[in-house]
Amino acid sequence: MGFSPLIEQLIESLRCLPGVGQKTAQRMAFHLLNNDKAGAGRLADVMQQAIEKIDHCSVCRNLCEHDICDYCASPSRDDSTLCIVESPADVLTVDRATHFKGKYFVLMGHLSPLDGIGPEELGLAMLGQRFDNNLIKEVILATNPTVEGEATAHYISEMAAKRQIKATRLAHGVPLGGELEYIDGNTLSHAFSDRREIL
Amino acid sequence: MGFSPLIEQLIESLRCLPGVGQKTAQRMAFHLLNNDKAGAGRLADVMQQAIEKIDHCSVCRNLCEHDICDYCASPSRDDSTLCIVESPADVLTVDRATHFKGKYFVLMGHLSPLDGIGPEELGLAMLGQRFDNNLIKEVILATNPTVEGEATAHYISEMAAKRQIKATRLAHGVPLGGELEYIDGNTLSHAFSDRREIL
Repeated sequence: MGFSPLIEQLIESLRCLPGVGQKTAQRMAFHLLNNDKAGAGRLADVMQQAIEKIDHCSVCRNLCEHDICDYCASPSRDDSTLCIVESPADVLTVDRATHFKGKYFVLMGHLSPLDGIGPEELGLAMLGQRFDNNLIKEVILATNPTVEGEATAHYISEMAAKRQIKATRLAHGVPLGGELEYIDGNTLSHAFSDRREIL
Repeated sequence: MGFSPLIEQLIESLRCLPGVGQKTAQRMAFHLLNNDKAGAGRLADVMQQAIEKIDHCSVCRNLCEHDICDYCASPSRDDSTLCIVESPADVLTVDRATHFKGKYFVLMGHLSPLDGIGPEELGLAMLGQRFDNNLIKEVILATNPTVEGEATAHYISEMAAKRQIKATRLAHGVPLGGELEYIDGNTLSHAFSDRREIL
């Protein structure tokens, strides 16, 4: 004998969440059924609504519940600078930490040929059309500082160069609050060669 | 600006899962919306069904989708021995690992006065009535080997003693496959005093 079939199904379904295996799913299922049926009900309801309504913004590929996201629809944001990021979470991170007031473009990933993710999957054709509109003066490449992120940034900078659009990349250097002793050599070497005069 | 309101709601709702904070909830939400809408739909659906249908078995307090669970309803299981465990997961663990063919009683927790969990919350009144039926010959106390588990086992053993029912506790000792060097002193002391003659 095992758990009741519906409990088994619930445990199995919870495993679609990232990082959740058999034991964690089991713990989650019993927690919800024992202690938080109200929370589970709300979660089921919101999840249903979210998968029905949330889709990609038709302009920047960000996730949103309207055809065009708030960032793209905002008339107060500057159309001439475009910040390119890998994920919707990065849009929020950049928006909170910087004073950037331009538009965004969300790749939803990075170039990764082994996983079958090429320019088409990242919407680069759509991005190319946007470059062709002659509105954009600068493209800020804010992909992750990983090998794949760098390759993706390089690919897009070449698309921009063909159309005489300036492409910039986030500066590499020592993070604030760190200690030099514990910073990896590559980062330190970047920080050293990009050193700036103290005003 | 932030995420779309529905995405915010989804992230907030996912936090009802145990061990899931803001960052994990965010990662789960984007994973589901980006890569696994089908899985999310199935999860929402199963979760809705589960919270509607799953309730406690009216005999043993196990979680199940019928009024009486499969264990209690089974005619092939012996009514004279009762194994008492803390959670539905423990029922399955005991059932898989042992040849026990009696009935179960699920406390759904352990005595914990500071959290407001007393005999009433663990269904001990219901258990007492079951003891009074004169069917039960032995009560096997399989609560966890923690301070709270031991206290709960002790409390129930006194309930059984009043009614002249034999109460037994799982043996403490060295786990198979371990190394003596790494076993805690308490366990080793138990194992030592409960040593058995090799046949």
